[in-house]
Amino acid sequence: MRRGSNLPHVSSFNRAVVLEAIRHSGDGLTRAQLGRVTGLSAQTVSNVTRTLLDRHLVRETRVVAQEGRGRPGTALELDPAGGFAVGIHIDPSALGTAVVDLTGEVVVQNHGPLPSPTDPGALIEHLHHEVRRMVAEARVPSSRLLGIGVAAPGPIDDEAGSVSPPLLPDWGTVPLRPLLARATGVDVVLDKDVIAAAKAVLWTGDAPDRENFLVVYVGAGAAIIPVIRGQVFRGTSGNAGETMHLPGDPASGSPHRWTLGGCLGERELVAHAHRLGIDLPGAVGSWDPHVVSEGFSHLVGLAHDGQDRAVEVFDAAGRVLGTAALVVTELLDITAIVMTGPRWESMRPLCEPALLSVIDDHAVHGQPRPLTLHTSRLATCSGTVGAACLVLDRLFSPHHSRLLITQ
Amino acid sequence: MRRGSNLPHVSSFNRAVVLEAIRHSGDGLTRAQLGRVTGLSAQTVSNVTRTLLDRHLVRETRVVAQEGRGRPGTALELDPAGGFAVGIHIDPSALGTAVVDLTGEVVVQNHGPLPSPTDPGALIEHLHHEVRRMVAEARVPSSRLLGIGVAAPGPIDDEAGSVSPPLLPDWGTVPLRPLLARATGVDVVLDKDVIAAAKAVLWTGDAPDRENFLVVYVGAGAAIIPVIRGQVFRGTSGNAGETMHLPGDPASGSPHRWTLGGCLGERELVAHAHRLGIDLPGAVGSWDPHVVSEGFSHLVGLAHDGQDRAVEVFDAAGRVLGTAALVVTELLDITAIVMTGPRWESMRPLCEPALLSVIDDHAVHGQPRPLTLHTSRLATCSGTVGAACLVLDRLFSPHHSRLLITQ
Repeated sequence: MRRGSNLPHVSSFNRAVVLEAIRHSGDGLTRAQLGRVTGLSAQTVSNVTRTLLDRHLVRETRVVAQEGRGRPGTALELDPAGGFAVGIHIDPSALGTAVVDLTGEVVVQNHGPLPSPTDPGALIEHLHHEVRRMVAEARVPSSRLLGIGVAAPGPIDDEAGSVSPPLLPDWGTVPLRPLLARATGVDVVLDKDVIAAAKAVLWTGDAPDRENFLVVYVGAGAAIIPVIRGQVFRGTSGNAGETMHLPGDPASGSPHRWTLGGCLGERELVAHAHRLGIDLPGAVGSWDPHVVSEGFSHLVGLAHDGQDRAVEVFDAAGRVLGTAALVVTELLDITAIVMTGPRWESMRPLCEPALLSVIDDHAVHGQPRPLTLHTSRLATCSGTVGAACLVLDRLFSPHHSRLLITQ
Repeated sequence: MRRGSNLPHVSSFNRAVVLEAIRHSGDGLTRAQLGRVTGLSAQTVSNVTRTLLDRHLVRETRVVAQEGRGRPGTALELDPAGGFAVGIHIDPSALGTAVVDLTGEVVVQNHGPLPSPTDPGALIEHLHHEVRRMVAEARVPSSRLLGIGVAAPGPIDDEAGSVSPPLLPDWGTVPLRPLLARATGVDVVLDKDVIAAAKAVLWTGDAPDRENFLVVYVGAGAAIIPVIRGQVFRGTSGNAGETMHLPGDPASGSPHRWTLGGCLGERELVAHAHRLGIDLPGAVGSWDPHVVSEGFSHLVGLAHDGQDRAVEVFDAAGRVLGTAALVVTELLDITAIVMTGPRWESMRPLCEPALLSVIDDHAVHGQPRPLTLHTSRLATCSGTVGAACLVLDRLFSPHHSRLLITQ
């Protein structure tokens, strides 16, 4: 049953609205400007900004001459040092870690291969030390450490905080969130990689439209997530974004099913190349993510060098991406697509022409519905930054649910 | 930029929350029960219910003994006569019209073939008389007529209030909303048929889950719409729900594309039957919706009689439905599917076994994610009732946007 709203909840929501307006403004807003963009009264803006200043979340900067006859005002901007979050992105073959400040800017970061992919216990141990090291390096006072965000391959169990990544078959099910919280003594938020990447796009203002867009994530696997009314849609259990059953010819008795990950994953592209006669010794069929990743990098190199069959592998991948994007844009009537994920930068020049050829001149029932394609500037580290943004988002975003009375 | 919230908006939201709680309760709630389910204070509940009583939106019914040590309280239920809305459902071959009361119950209704499918001007004239006739028959005082809702085949132009239905090619683009508002002098809300049908399911509480579910609509065409966080998702331009580009084999050079409507529309099922050698004189390839509809009814009759090839047509249609539903449930992590639309009742026994065979034992990455399939009890008239619910929903539903300060 839906809950009502009351004044304390409105105050907390308005704080988040003002903070978001300042965050998205680039170089700050005066109190008068904040009143205009949020619709809040001068008195409310004054109260809210006082609280934000007291909490060191914003700071006063330069004096700005107001438009018209208004008095000059002091611009407020985010205080980057007001809070810090740790982001951890676990990809089957890679590990990204970072400390970001309140603006979502990276203070320290580290990207490398995933240590001990077959031993989650050793990974937790490694992460514990890594978090300590980074927090010290970034000189984050412990009172300003807001939490740790983890972006992991799905599926996740939202309640248990566990993951069961199919590309790390030795893991089985690992209760990542409680294990890491216990090891570090810090609050941990866990979400799927694609959801974290979408939060990064949203938090850093890196989308052409802030209300409705799709995020297409290309990591060891691949996924599509919708951002709806300015919020990442997590689904009923936090596992939205799967594309397992994109159909072949469903009218036939035995539909040939394909999946986005099944056409675009590292393992699958390597397998496709092998079927076309490209020699990638060791990588084909391997379950060692580092071996697969090495084979994949070799394949990318061949395609960049113009090797015909390697080019065809990525051409086909681009068509798959375009077709999957069309299905989702039509279903949800969303016209902006943001590409991101650790593998997109290297695949982009190889896949984008075929992708664009599928989505260009898009029409529904003969009526044009043009789609825009945008590559996130965070492409490679969106999972890591997004993991940290899970923490910032939970604390500071003006979700409508914040307005509702909780149980 | 996101807007703030303030007290007058909270009051309007809380009125809608209380009204919704009463609406969903079945046989009414006392003020104490309302406080518990909405989280609102006794004082707020008292103020809100007084306003609702003054506006004749709710009425007091029986005295209820409270649980525990609370005093007995008076239950409040919706006052059905508090307001009425007209619903009009335009399907290419059929027209449904109804007056519904505040509870969503039908007071008068009329279903028949679409008059003059080639002449939108004559249709507007017909609707004008039909609205007058029904409002008189239902004895609705003019002060209690809240508006007219229209459910039409897409695509729609939200701003102009116009439609361009591909199955009524003689129409071109018709500015339905302004034409009907001018003819009747009553406010008109326009939405796509599938969106209206989903509102009916939501408004009448006819879904196993009130937060997240898919509505699959089978009319002259077919569409899928998600209900997300208790709200029908209309998309950026009000045209969500299309399934034009469900892909064949996208990795091949020339993907064979199929669409849900293209596999399930009346015209397409008739064409499929024809390809299997079933004789449906006149209907094949016709653009006259009544002729197509007659051929389709004949085909349904053959399948109900067990004619092998006719059975196969609907079996294939069921597999298409199941496959399309899988794609969307995985993408959005939604596990409840509600079937509705004017053609579903006759097709259900023919399609459901194949549909269930596709979605049963659904798993993602080897983890079970069972799907529930539910047929709306409004199946045949969900478009018509839903059209009226567009009006009720706009006035009375606790959308979060109601909490925000408007420009």
